[in-house]
Amino acid sequence: MAYQKFETEITVRPDDIDMNNHVHNSKYFDYVLAARYDQMIRFYGMSMEQFIARGFGWVVSGCTMHFKRSMKLGDVAIVKTQIHEVRTNGVNVLFEIVRKETNKICVDGIFEYTMINLQTERSEIIPDDIIQKYSI
Amino acid sequence: MAYQKFETEITVRPDDIDMNNHVHNSKYFDYVLAARYDQMIRFYGMSMEQFIARGFGWVVSGCTMHFKRSMKLGDVAIVKTQIHEVRTNGVNVLFEIVRKETNKICVDGIFEYTMINLQTERSEIIPDDIIQKYSI
Amino acid sequence: MAYQKFETEITVRPDDIDMNNHVHNSKYFDYVLAARYDQMIRFYGMSMEQFIARGFGWVVSGCTMHFKRSMKLGDVAIVKTQIHEVRTNGVNVLFEIVRKETNKICVDGIFEYTMINLQTERSEIIPDDIIQKYSI
Amino acid sequence: MAYQKFETEITVRPDDIDMNNHVHNSKYFDYVLAARYDQMIRFYGMSMEQFIARGFGWVVSGCTMHFKRSMKLGDVAIVKTQIHEVRTNGVNVLFEIVRKETNKICVDGIFEYTMINLQTERSEIIPDDIIQKYSI
Repeated sequence: MAYQKFETEITVRPDDIDMNNHVHNSKYFDYVLAARYDQMIRFYGMSMEQFIARGFGWVVSGCTMHFKRSMKLGDVAIVKTQIHEVRTNGVNVLFEIVRKETNKICVDGIFEYTMINLQTERSEIIPDDIIQKYSI
Repeated sequence: MAYQKFETEITVRPDDIDMNNHVHNSKYFDYVLAARYDQMIRFYGMSMEQFIARGFGWVVSGCTMHFKRSMKLGDVAIVKTQIHEVRTNGVNVLFEIVRKETNKICVDGIFEYTMINLQTERSEIIPDDIIQKYSI
Repeated sequence: MAYQKFETEITVRPDDIDMNNHVHNSKYFDYVLAARYDQMIRFYGMSMEQFIARGFGWVVSGCTMHFKRSMKLGDVAIVKTQIHEVRTNGVNVLFEIVRKETNKICVDGIFEYTMINLQTERSEIIPDDIIQKYSI
Repeated sequence: MAYQKFETEITVRPDDIDMNNHVHNSKYFDYVLAARYDQMIRFYGMSMEQFIARGFGWVVSGCTMHFKRSMKLGDVAIVKTQIHEVRTNGVNVLFEIVRKETNKICVDGIFEYTMINLQTERSEIIPDDIIQKYSI
């Protein structure tokens, strides 16, 4: 099964720029987080707030990122994410960050999210209804 | 003379949120910078890049901020700025950050910008044509 | 009565540097927060954690900052803070950020802190024993 | 050949903490950058400034990070790095971020650095004298 790819636009802010006049590497990590947060609401029908209200949270347990081209102030990032695999206690999410003007990939990679119980802060098996919502 | 008030929308990002689950205070500073950057392009007809190409830069030489209401993840900030006074070597800019959903002021205050020569890093008298562009 | 001035050293990190190759203005705000956090433990005998355990929090309700000299990567900041005034529901704290190598003031100003009840998120009258701890 | 492992201490700052009351994931990336910057001066006998003066820069071309345990406000991170491999145009650097109090690994992984020519912004073959300095 192939999961759908969703997109979120993020306008680069001046405080994202580092001493090399490029978007600072660690900000791309934050762009992926922001995109997934947005996409939970718009596409998965379950906002982070609703998720938290059920006592669950997502933590990033691992990531691999390839920095291919730099972005600059004035650029708009399109962050594309797509579930690669649903695990019993998490999801692996592929991402691409594309510069809107050129449509070229600047950063890509994969995030490994783990679902936790906010009380215990330990990983938990994802309930079926949430797997359903993510199976698009 | 009253200067015009300009607006820029900024969507709160997860990395803006602090341990109190609110937008971190210092991020409002960055929101004002981002709004001014955007407004240079859209309203003053002179992007920061064009400004830099002439050998000039803006630095913040002072600020006063009043934090009245907190913003949260999921909120959209409307950053309104308005020149209060044009000085020989800078501009004082009033700002209000309003939560879009409620239209209530969350943060307001004033930024004191000084124009510098990027070579010398010292303040410089603003050229007439730039004062013209800002006199709207 | 004059309150004591306390110092905290903060080493500038690469992610504090902005496109102008200086410490980004809003990071100085964060340096003051970090210094007060450190000084609560070392000088006021009441860590933020102990404070939170009593159901209280500090929020910044206002600030004025004067940016006089820039700091760079490789610099060490000495953040000096001193209570200026204890209000019924907060404290006003003067600060100076000095570059260690030159001992020159780079940023100074004042922070207005308000004590809140973490449950209600509203300001609260500071208990006497906490005023005692701050009266040094 | 096994390269030496070097250590840098970083005190967690309040602005590193996110909505989950932990050090925000992307800040660990910044901790590694800060540690390498520090270690260039203290161990490799070649500060970033000297490196830049020769017209060179380091960019991160890739990273893999495993987030194993969270860190909190009040913690001190010990960032250990060790060259894994010197490539013709870069170095791969293993890292571990350990919580000082417990000596347990919180985050580990690998950074792929590429040396660039600051003029062309393209990767360049590392000069022999720099490979010498890194071969410890």
